[in-house]
Amino acid sequence: MEQTNRAKLFDVFKPDTDALIYMSGGRVSHRYNTDFEYSFRQESNFLYLTGIDEPDFHVLFDLQDQTWHLVLPKRDSKFAVWMGYVNSPDYYKEAFKPDSVFYDDKLEVVFRKRKPSMVYCNTQSDADFVTGHGLETDTVTLPEALAYCRSIKTDHELELMRRASKAASEAHIIAMKRAQTASWEYEVKADFEHHLVQQGMLHHPYSGIFASGKNSAILHYVDNSRRIPKGAQFLIDAGAEYKGYASDITRTFPVNGKFDGVFGDLYRLVLQALVETTSSARPGVKMEDLHLHACQVILRGLKDLGYLHGSIDDMMQVNLFALFFPHGLGHFLGLDTHDVGGYLKGVEPIDRPGLRFLRARRTLEKGMVITIEPGLYIIPALLEPAFSDPKQAPFLNESKLRNLLNFGGIRIEDNLVITETSYENLTNVPKKPEEIEAIIGD
Amino acid sequence: MEQTNRAKLFDVFKPDTDALIYMSGGRVSHRYNTDFEYSFRQESNFLYLTGIDEPDFHVLFDLQDQTWHLVLPKRDSKFAVWMGYVNSPDYYKEAFKPDSVFYDDKLEVVFRKRKPSMVYCNTQSDADFVTGHGLETDTVTLPEALAYCRSIKTDHELELMRRASKAASEAHIIAMKRAQTASWEYEVKADFEHHLVQQGMLHHPYSGIFASGKNSAILHYVDNSRRIPKGAQFLIDAGAEYKGYASDITRTFPVNGKFDGVFGDLYRLVLQALVETTSSARPGVKMEDLHLHACQVILRGLKDLGYLHGSIDDMMQVNLFALFFPHGLGHFLGLDTHDVGGYLKGVEPIDRPGLRFLRARRTLEKGMVITIEPGLYIIPALLEPAFSDPKQAPFLNESKLRNLLNFGGIRIEDNLVITETSYENLTNVPKKPEEIEAIIGD
Repeated sequence: MEQTNRAKLFDVFKPDTDALIYMSGGRVSHRYNTDFEYSFRQESNFLYLTGIDEPDFHVLFDLQDQTWHLVLPKRDSKFAVWMGYVNSPDYYKEAFKPDSVFYDDKLEVVFRKRKPSMVYCNTQSDADFVTGHGLETDTVTLPEALAYCRSIKTDHELELMRRASKAASEAHIIAMKRAQTASWEYEVKADFEHHLVQQGMLHHPYSGIFASGKNSAILHYVDNSRRIPKGAQFLIDAGAEYKGYASDITRTFPVNGKFDGVFGDLYRLVLQALVETTSSARPGVKMEDLHLHACQVILRGLKDLGYLHGSIDDMMQVNLFALFFPHGLGHFLGLDTHDVGGYLKGVEPIDRPGLRFLRARRTLEKGMVITIEPGLYIIPALLEPAFSDPKQAPFLNESKLRNLLNFGGIRIEDNLVITETSYENLTNVPKKPEEIEAIIGD
Repeated sequence: MEQTNRAKLFDVFKPDTDALIYMSGGRVSHRYNTDFEYSFRQESNFLYLTGIDEPDFHVLFDLQDQTWHLVLPKRDSKFAVWMGYVNSPDYYKEAFKPDSVFYDDKLEVVFRKRKPSMVYCNTQSDADFVTGHGLETDTVTLPEALAYCRSIKTDHELELMRRASKAASEAHIIAMKRAQTASWEYEVKADFEHHLVQQGMLHHPYSGIFASGKNSAILHYVDNSRRIPKGAQFLIDAGAEYKGYASDITRTFPVNGKFDGVFGDLYRLVLQALVETTSSARPGVKMEDLHLHACQVILRGLKDLGYLHGSIDDMMQVNLFALFFPHGLGHFLGLDTHDVGGYLKGVEPIDRPGLRFLRARRTLEKGMVITIEPGLYIIPALLEPAFSDPKQAPFLNESKLRNLLNFGGIRIEDNLVITETSYENLTNVPKKPEEIEAIIGD
């Protein structure tokens, strides 16, 4: 698998160049000035190109002959005692098939002998290290090349992402059932994560959100520590990581399973935004157009329900959608949850409320994996100023909206692979009200 | 509670000094160059003195009048949308009772107006910030003062530590039962952590070790991903964090519950080292003496079992204990798992194998909380060189020890509070073979 990834990277660079690529892999990092270690997770680009899942490695790619060279840390017996068995260079040669392996104390000699005209680096600190050996560096080209490669997934990568989505889908269903009887948000989180850890998925792709009641309107709620109000809605935005690859799924549901009243109305609206944008997803479509489509569905729905009045076009003009849907419709997904490649060189985010946070502004292509995650939130910090904004206030039914100030929010999120003509939905968690009712009623 | 802690700190400094203490609190940190956020945990000294559990705060302590001043980050509406509700200065004034609160953009004015002769800082980066305002700094005195304060726990702190120990004790018993039927190490980890997360203990005090078979000889084994060999021994070194306070417990047991054969012999030996050192723990006793006592118990036991021959005193002379017990007997425990205060100013670690890693070299006092964790490991990386070491080899029954090379290791660890005349054991997990047999047989 990594061989295909390396071949893709070599293809991006001119094969006849005299340059090298140098990358250091991840290291163990600590909390503040203590010896508390964050669980080691390999840096994504390094994992993508080498498959090595241990700290302190380096790698060189020689663009002249398209070879790659794995650089091992020198471990001592103290390391063996504290961290485990020390594998030999032959082990790495056999297992990962680099063109050569050598210890990191030889890096200097290699740089000196090879004298590349340019060394492409992934980070500034790698570049500083290389510059210290008197060589020229470039920290722009390599990250861009890697983002370009990583934004189109190989079949093997898609297989891993299906596994990540499957596991998270199962965990969502378990969590939905648990939420029915749970008193505290963290009880739901405990069951969700248990399902993944017991399968060996020891890393979470991001801090999951387990938000009840009005906490569901906080886009990045990671407290997960409040008491669940009786009959409240519950928003779970959580995924799984399988062999480095992320899934990222959101569901919102009433803990009593009843999609009635205001919640039911607004839920159906978000679901419609999801269904309409999802069904438009195919090669050639622009992410920002899907985003604007979702905005229109939400505004029209809010108007139909009497929360807004006036022309949808005029509402769009004053960015009214961003009051209710302030985040991006979706992002790339892969080795990182907010995966690289969302913006090609020279493309800037659109400086407009809501769209500003759209993390991918690409024309969709086969092999891209994206999230589609429309939402609808009642956020006092946004609505209160809008009520007295001369441009936005005329569209708002203030008294009706004021009744909702403690409502919270709704988000529904699926993960899609763009196929030749359409998409494959990786997410397998019910989202229609009657399907969720059936699960919770179980 | 933090008021008592602040009073302890003020007591350490001269009350008539013109100096200030400045500390920044923790910030959210990210993995590599991504937007993956590590779960926020307040920096321990900051938590100890303020009780504030949010990122981006600062604090000033005025040594002249023994007042304290909470410095708030300025949050905007974007923060409210993404991170949650923004509390007012009055909220913090009410909840935490500082002498004043102000926003961080006023820090410069305060420094300029107050013109302290010295600013005591917790870290170099805090000192750099203060130096930038043209003030003198000291980064040695404050960490030492805090280590001194934190090494003696208040009654309130002990109450929290009892809770942390109780939760982890329960989780250990759950995990022991689970190990019996589990196929993979992470299945046991999943159940252990589930018990804590479902009670709202969302932080783990350290990366737990769930090691089966010979992995139990790797002191810092955090893979937790291997298949459990049939009838293997299982080592669990894992704790809970309750309101910032850690517990840190280790148990080793055969998954089939049978303490027979070599495992049973060696287990009883480690248990004896634990029982003897624990029962010696009281004010006035030195940690390094307890460590050496444990070493002697282990050497004598190995001799009685025929693995060693010769005089125990001679073995001690050549540090033979460190082949089998290469880590420290224990450490301070508190807001950090390896808590501060283990070494007073001017005291250095003993440069001797095994003892080198002893993280506390203090004479025990009432209110200290320590771990006692003797271990016995068969570590090829240590034994192989010893077999050909002219000083150590004569004591080793090489052929008998060679039969053990895949044995793994045993560690048993309890958490003790030093009391007026003795100790209180915070850990409530069975450790006698017959007690563990009863649990696993359940």
